[in-house]
Amino acid sequence: MKAIQVVGYHEKLRQAEVPMPEPTGPYDVVVKIGGAGVCRTDVHILEGQWAEKSGVTLPYTIGHENAGWVHAVGSAVTNVAEGDKVIVHPLVTCGLCRACRSGDDVHCGQSLFPGIDTHGGYAEYLKTSARSVVRLDDSLEPADVAALADAGLTAYHAAAKAAGRLRPGDRCVVIGAGGLGHIGIQVLKALTAAELIVVDRNPDAVTLAVSIGADHGVVADGTHVSRVLELTGGNGAEVVVDFVGEGGATAEGVRMLRRAGDYHVVGYGENIDVPTIDIISTEINFIGNLVGSYNDLCELMVLAAQGKVRLHTSKYPLERFQDAIDDLEAGRIRGRAVLTP
Amino acid sequence: MKAIQVVGYHEKLRQAEVPMPEPTGPYDVVVKIGGAGVCRTDVHILEGQWAEKSGVTLPYTIGHENAGWVHAVGSAVTNVAEGDKVIVHPLVTCGLCRACRSGDDVHCGQSLFPGIDTHGGYAEYLKTSARSVVRLDDSLEPADVAALADAGLTAYHAAAKAAGRLRPGDRCVVIGAGGLGHIGIQVLKALTAAELIVVDRNPDAVTLAVSIGADHGVVADGTHVSRVLELTGGNGAEVVVDFVGEGGATAEGVRMLRRAGDYHVVGYGENIDVPTIDIISTEINFIGNLVGSYNDLCELMVLAAQGKVRLHTSKYPLERFQDAIDDLEAGRIRGRAVLTP
Amino acid sequence: MKAIQVVGYHEKLRQAEVPMPEPTGPYDVVVKIGGAGVCRTDVHILEGQWAEKSGVTLPYTIGHENAGWVHAVGSAVTNVAEGDKVIVHPLVTCGLCRACRSGDDVHCGQSLFPGIDTHGGYAEYLKTSARSVVRLDDSLEPADVAALADAGLTAYHAAAKAAGRLRPGDRCVVIGAGGLGHIGIQVLKALTAAELIVVDRNPDAVTLAVSIGADHGVVADGTHVSRVLELTGGNGAEVVVDFVGEGGATAEGVRMLRRAGDYHVVGYGENIDVPTIDIISTEINFIGNLVGSYNDLCELMVLAAQGKVRLHTSKYPLERFQDAIDDLEAGRIRGRAVLTP
Amino acid sequence: MKAIQVVGYHEKLRQAEVPMPEPTGPYDVVVKIGGAGVCRTDVHILEGQWAEKSGVTLPYTIGHENAGWVHAVGSAVTNVAEGDKVIVHPLVTCGLCRACRSGDDVHCGQSLFPGIDTHGGYAEYLKTSARSVVRLDDSLEPADVAALADAGLTAYHAAAKAAGRLRPGDRCVVIGAGGLGHIGIQVLKALTAAELIVVDRNPDAVTLAVSIGADHGVVADGTHVSRVLELTGGNGAEVVVDFVGEGGATAEGVRMLRRAGDYHVVGYGENIDVPTIDIISTEINFIGNLVGSYNDLCELMVLAAQGKVRLHTSKYPLERFQDAIDDLEAGRIRGRAVLTP
Repeated sequence: MKAIQVVGYHEKLRQAEVPMPEPTGPYDVVVKIGGAGVCRTDVHILEGQWAEKSGVTLPYTIGHENAGWVHAVGSAVTNVAEGDKVIVHPLVTCGLCRACRSGDDVHCGQSLFPGIDTHGGYAEYLKTSARSVVRLDDSLEPADVAALADAGLTAYHAAAKAAGRLRPGDRCVVIGAGGLGHIGIQVLKALTAAELIVVDRNPDAVTLAVSIGADHGVVADGTHVSRVLELTGGNGAEVVVDFVGEGGATAEGVRMLRRAGDYHVVGYGENIDVPTIDIISTEINFIGNLVGSYNDLCELMVLAAQGKVRLHTSKYPLERFQDAIDDLEAGRIRGRAVLTP
Repeated sequence: MKAIQVVGYHEKLRQAEVPMPEPTGPYDVVVKIGGAGVCRTDVHILEGQWAEKSGVTLPYTIGHENAGWVHAVGSAVTNVAEGDKVIVHPLVTCGLCRACRSGDDVHCGQSLFPGIDTHGGYAEYLKTSARSVVRLDDSLEPADVAALADAGLTAYHAAAKAAGRLRPGDRCVVIGAGGLGHIGIQVLKALTAAELIVVDRNPDAVTLAVSIGADHGVVADGTHVSRVLELTGGNGAEVVVDFVGEGGATAEGVRMLRRAGDYHVVGYGENIDVPTIDIISTEINFIGNLVGSYNDLCELMVLAAQGKVRLHTSKYPLERFQDAIDDLEAGRIRGRAVLTP
Repeated sequence: MKAIQVVGYHEKLRQAEVPMPEPTGPYDVVVKIGGAGVCRTDVHILEGQWAEKSGVTLPYTIGHENAGWVHAVGSAVTNVAEGDKVIVHPLVTCGLCRACRSGDDVHCGQSLFPGIDTHGGYAEYLKTSARSVVRLDDSLEPADVAALADAGLTAYHAAAKAAGRLRPGDRCVVIGAGGLGHIGIQVLKALTAAELIVVDRNPDAVTLAVSIGADHGVVADGTHVSRVLELTGGNGAEVVVDFVGEGGATAEGVRMLRRAGDYHVVGYGENIDVPTIDIISTEINFIGNLVGSYNDLCELMVLAAQGKVRLHTSKYPLERFQDAIDDLEAGRIRGRAVLTP
Repeated sequence: MKAIQVVGYHEKLRQAEVPMPEPTGPYDVVVKIGGAGVCRTDVHILEGQWAEKSGVTLPYTIGHENAGWVHAVGSAVTNVAEGDKVIVHPLVTCGLCRACRSGDDVHCGQSLFPGIDTHGGYAEYLKTSARSVVRLDDSLEPADVAALADAGLTAYHAAAKAAGRLRPGDRCVVIGAGGLGHIGIQVLKALTAAELIVVDRNPDAVTLAVSIGADHGVVADGTHVSRVLELTGGNGAEVVVDFVGEGGATAEGVRMLRRAGDYHVVGYGENIDVPTIDIISTEINFIGNLVGSYNDLCELMVLAAQGKVRLHTSKYPLERFQDAIDDLEAGRIRGRAVLTP
């Protein structure tokens, strides 16, 4: 089959002909790819940023945001059958450790991450696990939702966790209305009645945010911290969800947070660097957020099927992977690029 | 009446004769002091560290850890009567704001803090509020529990919050087995079946910790992070409660924390300075902890009455306040110093 | 001032001239009534059903769903001022007991219930407490929201509690789309993405339910249990909120509940009568629901101001109280009847 | 191998020679039995009470409380290896349904229940699943803990769930200090600082309860409801855990429950039969409790290894199964009977 592979760091991806994956373990599932999201992480992989962390052997097939149709299943698979339309959770988890047994599978001690540390979905077929596939509603198409499998899932996870404490009358600041942020906004809107204040440097992103449900849009132009304080009666917001995490966002974000508030860290880059005296005297919390669990992905697909979460995509045939990467790097993509068969 | 007052920063406390407080507001309660804890914060006040923050006008009476007997009550007080033995919550709160209405009174927007921003308890009598007095069990004496009113209450609050997620088999690291830490250890022991690992630089403190219930004592001698990792199967602990917060404790503490773990910030001094990438990739949380609520103080007094939390105290007559301060500064006090009538 | 009073059980209400209430206690608040909801409980009071329970001395002024403007305040009131537009929580609570200190004020051990056990709001003025008044958004008028003060607040409380465990993809059955139910539906819609299935005997109520957001309307015509099972894949719903509680509703409702599900009891009349073997083998829960707390009322007013909860009202001048009662008893009122100045 | 089988209802168990089980599926685990608990349910099976419910085909091997050593494993098993000492969770679950994926495996839609609906552990070997085996601490022996696998696990589950809301100063009534109750008491003691009030008809059971940590023992002699009310200041307890559920226990238990309290249903037999008006006016909850999850069993084994939960057992060689059953039926067993190799 065709597969797009990393053949060397600081080199371009290359198309190759590789053997089709087959189910060898009892829980293996082979998926015919209907859509594979092109993610900024893929660019970072090519730059070698993940080389040491993943320890993957080159060449290998990248692509960690996948959806398609079940093509073949291992002997013990009972939850999907050939032909089922599915989205693929990015991790392959063991199902036996305490994390897996608690519904907290992203903390599985022995997980694989196809597209990062083993073969991924820039290909015709992908091998994953019965524990990773979520059946899609008839109304959803793999290529339309593939890019929700990792970035969207992370945004869902953070937004749903944040929603747990948001009551009517509370305010939630969303920092960053880009790829993850605009999913997060839609999720918060679906799950809470809290007032959403969205902050972004890009006025177009702010406009988009308001069009999908933000109650207030604030352009990060230097006045934004005081603007948020104005919008929150001078007290700050009960929750800040930070999808940026760099360029000074965290220091500003903390100033937007109310006493006893939760600061959700999702985006990354800089350090959280806050005096402990400030943390204890205002009793604020910093909450880490990794990608969502399998159950989170099921729930996100419910919101997608209900039309409550929508993602704009630009589709490219698999062979045009280089165009997708180039357009991504040049900032020419609105929403997400997706490779299709 | 006699009162010990701050008359100037970088000066010694001075005894004065001042008018007795009287209930003027409907919820006022005047307490005859049975014990007033001598706290390191009192030393910091004299050094001027709180001058700007509190905005208090000199001279004023210090002392924020108080217990005694109700002497007089305002017209609307129904929960205590003259003669009742009480411990005094450090804050006087409004009872009407959303925080107060949620049981979260320490975040009251208009609270007073006797001993910090108004007259405190190094005196014969203290004016506080019906909302601040907790009746004591017959078995408890004011001078024995006074020092639990602030430091002990902070430790209770953090330990009880941490206990909420600790299940049998989980590990909890307590950093610092001093004043707060040794209360925290007793509370964790009373509220959970988690394995307690206590870390302190002082071998005597570690020995004490083990004697009051710690499952493992670790002297912080440079090998302590790896020792904790050994004790936790290489994974770190589900919860770290940090009563130190300075001298490098937080960086070390984070290395002792398991994936998806909670880091409770209680002690302060340095910054939490952690890469956002580490926060998200391990999905850890930093939880701020301020002093406990009124309900927390009620619960701590239950543990004290049950004999599950004990505090060693050294008592000084009120007039010997300077000896108490001197002994505290010289490190001559085991447990807590308390001024008595 | 004018007041409408109960002068005897099984007699009609009578208009009287009574002294205006004045603030006597420090936390008293006198409200000029802008709207007083006419509730079925008022009819039950006249029938003597509450005589023993309330122990009220006749004559007294009824009316427990009140809103208006602050007219006068006691010496210690800081949260509202003369002229403020407010809705009145039905209970006057002490603020000092453990329930009040936990935000759970409806379980206050010493509360008063104006309109039930002391003078209520079918009058020009009502005496209540600073702890009972919630300021209204400029966009809301007292007469429009008064009827949310008790019935609406009960529905909000149950729906918000139920919402806490509802995730996308979960189903929630609402039994009864009358007065409380149609508020509950709007609240569930605002707070969750769960699929709402509304069951009512009255086809018009079902139609209304669907128009305000129910995903499925089911007429209770004998096929409704199997219809709900069909709509839930044969498993039943994660949550049932029962606003009826009589006429066999509970036995039917339990059959609509999924394993590990929550059955919220709100309406009342019959007994919950379920074999313990069924409760344990399916591990279901029965959750009681009383009227909401002060904080719940604040949150409901936020939803009202956001336009997410609307109530249809029929207004009557205070003097026409008998017409309102007659119309209520004859079933001629759509939504709720409200007395206005 | 030897196995003790049900050959007909209302007949005695019979020893048979049957083929040894072998791992056929990838997650199968064969356990060499070290102890098999003899449970009252086994007697009920022989009486035919489970015949219809389980649909099992006779003859089959009973025994659902098992512990021993791993003898052989399927191809995909990674969490245990031959020779490991294990206790066996009573259910074999799928690992793929939403309940399994949420840590709530007892609600798995396709579980097997060895000893009830397929071959159990009154035998030399038992076939179970990798998802069902919990490794034992070196200090624990299979025959000593086997009887915790079902009855003890149920008690743990209810007690741990109840513990979640119990704060210092709260009271918890335990109804029934027999097999489950005395495990429940030890668990509550380990996990909370709540005051435990234990009620039982049998004075010896009450004495035992006090010896293992109950704060108050109350003999159910007709005065017990008022005795409990006395012990709770006339208000009732925040939590009642009812391990009896028959003979009038539930009606009495509800009278012992405080406003806003939780009534945990564990024992069964009679109906919960309570007016909805009482449920809503006091806002009480009835919480169902089934057997604990896999994670619950891990936690219970931690408490057992810590010596916090102990079970008295009477051991019988496998061949003496009839003596064990006879002694159980005659009430001659203190604690639990266990069959050993």
